[in-house]
Amino acid sequence: LTGAFEHVHRVRFDEVDAAGIVYFPRFFTWCHDAMEALLTPIDYADLVRRRRLGLPAVHAEADYTSPVRFGDEVRVAVVVERIGTSSCALRFDLSHGERRVATLRHVVAATDLDAMRARPLPDDVRAAFQRHLVMPG
Amino acid sequence: LTGAFEHVHRVRFDEVDAAGIVYFPRFFTWCHDAMEALLTPIDYADLVRRRRLGLPAVHAEADYTSPVRFGDEVRVAVVVERIGTSSCALRFDLSHGERRVATLRHVVAATDLDAMRARPLPDDVRAAFQRHLVMPG
Amino acid sequence: LTGAFEHVHRVRFDEVDAAGIVYFPRFFTWCHDAMEALLTPIDYADLVRRRRLGLPAVHAEADYTSPVRFGDEVRVAVVVERIGTSSCALRFDLSHGERRVATLRHVVAATDLDAMRARPLPDDVRAAFQRHLVMPG
Amino acid sequence: LTGAFEHVHRVRFDEVDAAGIVYFPRFFTWCHDAMEALLTPIDYADLVRRRRLGLPAVHAEADYTSPVRFGDEVRVAVVVERIGTSSCALRFDLSHGERRVATLRHVVAATDLDAMRARPLPDDVRAAFQRHLVMPG
Repeated sequence: LTGAFEHVHRVRFDEVDAAGIVYFPRFFTWCHDAMEALLTPIDYADLVRRRRLGLPAVHAEADYTSPVRFGDEVRVAVVVERIGTSSCALRFDLSHGERRVATLRHVVAATDLDAMRARPLPDDVRAAFQRHLVMPG
Repeated sequence: LTGAFEHVHRVRFDEVDAAGIVYFPRFFTWCHDAMEALLTPIDYADLVRRRRLGLPAVHAEADYTSPVRFGDEVRVAVVVERIGTSSCALRFDLSHGERRVATLRHVVAATDLDAMRARPLPDDVRAAFQRHLVMPG
Repeated sequence: LTGAFEHVHRVRFDEVDAAGIVYFPRFFTWCHDAMEALLTPIDYADLVRRRRLGLPAVHAEADYTSPVRFGDEVRVAVVVERIGTSSCALRFDLSHGERRVATLRHVVAATDLDAMRARPLPDDVRAAFQRHLVMPG
Repeated sequence: LTGAFEHVHRVRFDEVDAAGIVYFPRFFTWCHDAMEALLTPIDYADLVRRRRLGLPAVHAEADYTSPVRFGDEVRVAVVVERIGTSSCALRFDLSHGERRVATLRHVVAATDLDAMRARPLPDDVRAAFQRHLVMPG
């Protein structure tokens, strides 16, 4: 069984909204950061800036279970649910202590950033995702 | 048939990412802004600050069709798809010129911000959403 | 005497921090937006994307007088204090009702975005700034 | 001689603007984060949420020397330049490799977040700042 990739984000001072809880789109940023961390040793900055390959989201969704606040440590557990020719589906389970706070899903598509066109996942990116691919039960 | 509510957002200088296109979580912010505009003459700031009622998202999702860039005028057409006791489901169709750029859905739940507990939608908020409720075909 | 250029920003839901007041770097964003508006009919997006000229800040400063909150309407009065060969100094006086909330200053430098090198202010940009140049008393 | 406090920030994917370089107000966020880190073991989230004391900026300024980009590792060296009854002046020298990228200064004022009024710096906060106070030459 492939394990989840773990990433931790501590909620920053400026990530809340006027309701006093984390502003809901912020969770997508944390998951993007978690995906970048999962890709290590591939450096996403190098991928984008030198190799001109990006992984923009073609789909993103979130179910919010429990609010989080400034200073909370949010654990992000990432698994890969599906790998296609040029796309990859990731699931992110976010928790704070014992409490589940949100579940997110991103589908990203390998994209040539100059032509802005889909292209096949490069081998090293595919391999990085494959390390965290979960087998369907 | 109830018409959609229209809101326009011009992409700001700081809304792009290192791939040169709008950073994907930004679309959720524009849709939140569109929901606030739809609620007029109810002032969401007054709702949150004085009445202590918020409409946090319990679900949010986006399908991205086409990238947008700094300066692009994005038209957001909002319809309400479902109104429950305390929740409301909204759909946002985003376009730039003739081009569809994204479709988003938010489900928001009326929440007592002091108790952080769901509560029924107040009558005026319910009525505001009802003005843009679409009947299923 | 040249008058100030006026720009209004209504504080958004996500512009506050965990202290419940607007997060202090946000004021710089509003002033950047005000500068873009002042440049009209020059479109800053066109300047950056097609003409590849930017006006990055080489200096920015703010004095904060009074906190602002979600929903507050902040009036930004912009004047140009100095125009050089490639740079321009702007002052922004921000108020909410009768209350002064902050004073900011930006010095921006015309920059060739491909070479990332300073270049003289183009005539149309210089003329736009000149319309709001204040004469020293 | 008291040494500077060191903090490292790696530029994130969403911190750039349409000119392809880091959006200038972001530097203030990194410096705020560095101040929070400097205060350790005092937890700023605890200070704000439980003790209801904040350190809002009353003044902030930045001189930008060299642009930074996605993926760049920015080293922030923080020193305290002055400690008053309720305020503290901090200087932040930012560099990327051997290259100086910016110098920022924040003056923050201890503030009772319920009364929104200045109050003396608590002893533990004062002591934390004092550890990095530089003596004028």
